[in-house]
Amino acid sequence: MAAKKEAGQAAPKQIREYDAETMQKIQTLAAALLEEINKGENLHIDIPVRGSSNVTFNEKTKKIELGDKFARRYLFNVAHARRFMQTLLVASYVKKDLLENNLTATLRDLYYAKKHTIPGTKEDTIDEQKESDLAIVDFEVALDTFRERLHLRAEPKGRIAGQMVVTDRVKDKVDTIDLSKMGSGGWAVPSIVEQVEFKEIDAEYVLVAEKNAIFDRLNEDAYWAKQKCLLMTTGGQAARGARRLLKRLSSELNLPIYCLTDADPYGWYIYSCMKYGSMALAHESDRLGSKDMKFLGMSISDIEHYDLRSVTIKAKDVDIKRAEEMKAYDWFKAPAWQREIDKFLDKKIKAEIQSLSSKNLQYISTTYLPEKIKSQDFLP
Amino acid sequence: MAAKKEAGQAAPKQIREYDAETMQKIQTLAAALLEEINKGENLHIDIPVRGSSNVTFNEKTKKIELGDKFARRYLFNVAHARRFMQTLLVASYVKKDLLENNLTATLRDLYYAKKHTIPGTKEDTIDEQKESDLAIVDFEVALDTFRERLHLRAEPKGRIAGQMVVTDRVKDKVDTIDLSKMGSGGWAVPSIVEQVEFKEIDAEYVLVAEKNAIFDRLNEDAYWAKQKCLLMTTGGQAARGARRLLKRLSSELNLPIYCLTDADPYGWYIYSCMKYGSMALAHESDRLGSKDMKFLGMSISDIEHYDLRSVTIKAKDVDIKRAEEMKAYDWFKAPAWQREIDKFLDKKIKAEIQSLSSKNLQYISTTYLPEKIKSQDFLP
Repeated sequence: MAAKKEAGQAAPKQIREYDAETMQKIQTLAAALLEEINKGENLHIDIPVRGSSNVTFNEKTKKIELGDKFARRYLFNVAHARRFMQTLLVASYVKKDLLENNLTATLRDLYYAKKHTIPGTKEDTIDEQKESDLAIVDFEVALDTFRERLHLRAEPKGRIAGQMVVTDRVKDKVDTIDLSKMGSGGWAVPSIVEQVEFKEIDAEYVLVAEKNAIFDRLNEDAYWAKQKCLLMTTGGQAARGARRLLKRLSSELNLPIYCLTDADPYGWYIYSCMKYGSMALAHESDRLGSKDMKFLGMSISDIEHYDLRSVTIKAKDVDIKRAEEMKAYDWFKAPAWQREIDKFLDKKIKAEIQSLSSKNLQYISTTYLPEKIKSQDFLP
Repeated sequence: MAAKKEAGQAAPKQIREYDAETMQKIQTLAAALLEEINKGENLHIDIPVRGSSNVTFNEKTKKIELGDKFARRYLFNVAHARRFMQTLLVASYVKKDLLENNLTATLRDLYYAKKHTIPGTKEDTIDEQKESDLAIVDFEVALDTFRERLHLRAEPKGRIAGQMVVTDRVKDKVDTIDLSKMGSGGWAVPSIVEQVEFKEIDAEYVLVAEKNAIFDRLNEDAYWAKQKCLLMTTGGQAARGARRLLKRLSSELNLPIYCLTDADPYGWYIYSCMKYGSMALAHESDRLGSKDMKFLGMSISDIEHYDLRSVTIKAKDVDIKRAEEMKAYDWFKAPAWQREIDKFLDKKIKAEIQSLSSKNLQYISTTYLPEKIKSQDFLP
């Protein structure tokens, strides 16, 4: 495979470097608390507000963003004390158990490790996992970092194959993985991809499909080899690892990303989460969102253009309701999207990518995708 | 990696060989139908009955099996004609579209490809996918074969890593994949694994974990390298591809398989489906079930032995009800399982594998698994 890596807009930091940076941030926070203890002051941590009052869509950067409102959380405040304690339990676990030992863990591991009865009381540090999960997000935003840099893993999902060689590091073991030699399975996209380095690349774009079935079809047709691209599936709504990998492919390698979902509001939602992030994860959209991603299809116009009317599905009430909601979202205000949603609301039909199989099994590889990409017939 | 492959009990057939075998079976069926046409007889296909009246648990083979009852389906019978036609549509698609072109497809692709309005009528060949799905199973059992040999893919799930090199074939491209060099992701287990060949193996057993989080933990701890094993996760209830791969590792390489799930009825169910198959897939248990699989844990006894009482979860009514049902299943009648289920019903608590993280993150790798395997403390 030819080495054709282009210089991206941001060179990835070395693993040791960003771990040192995270460690430094934790130490700075701890030093500030220690100073308050020494001065006899009430301990506090400033935590950016994540509610809808502080979340906006930035038209210019095309990102769902947190504003600059923050809440000051105090130790000596009955309403704050418990969450304050939990946030420091998180800090302690991340620093001592994870970063110092170069280990990763899940949110559930952290919950089990830090849940205990406070000596001399009948009170538990953590009752339910949702408490420690919230404390983890508090800690992420207070440090202006993200979960993966705290060595916390989310459930992984997704597979990738194509014209690229990567290295992946597990502790001190570095593996070189040729994504063009992954057979019919593909490489499973890890929970954390910070340590993945892009080596040889000979791809002109990334095609990301919502469905495993589409990955399997295109992989069998050697689509990525013929079209010089990377092929990925998210297996439904994209996991954090998959979203982060796409974002890195886009920003570090300047690769265009084309998204392939069913023609229905759920498909649009999957696309918009990968592109813009979501309200709930507004603090992460900068790290997880691929703002230049394009929606290749399937579009409602494709149904007519490719004569798929007989294999469409009648939209349900819940689809109509969802489409009406999405039409009002700031990030679907582009005229092309407004027209797309209106077309859906008018026809009240949806279509699956796999409905192209009614023509022939390989129609998607031989006709649909090449045509759409050649004519750059995308939604923004 | 040392080449230490042991001769298994059944050498895998070459891909061309089993495809030819399937093709031959289809031609034999078609020839019989043609003969009936030529003789002016009513066309028929014999299809083994899959209902509970024909499903038994074979104590000796430890498999859920189909009995020898079959139903004779006729073309000229108003109750049979539609399903007869659909079964032949499946046969045609499998032979002409898939086998002859060396392509694979999903059940949904087949549905879209074969759904059409019968000329001169207002009747569709297939109304809903569940009709063609049933016709596919009819066709599988009539041919005494299984879906993957008909080139039909199911949704894939699962990841594998460890001391083995495999080859996987995508049409005429053969990739060599070293499962010890898959980084933190692992190799994604394909939908169809018939064409996977086991090459160099230096593993003494297979450890299959229900949860991705356990795979990630053990992979980070280099457990499979230290313990010379293969590590796999099914990511919840096991997909067909994962079950078939386990079955092949067990029967062709004589590798013991140890299963790791949460200590609760859902975990037992996941285990039993991988080991015995299920009532609904009784016709497949011979191809998908790993009858020698052992349940390593987590067991209800482990909760006491490893002092995990403080991190257990109270069983819900639905768990109790499920446990009572499972206690009556033939394949849970072994005294050790009856005691396990009774212990659960007595204590009414369940525990997750990840609760071991309350000790320390690596306790599962350094203590729990080595102890359990050394003492062979398994449930059958």
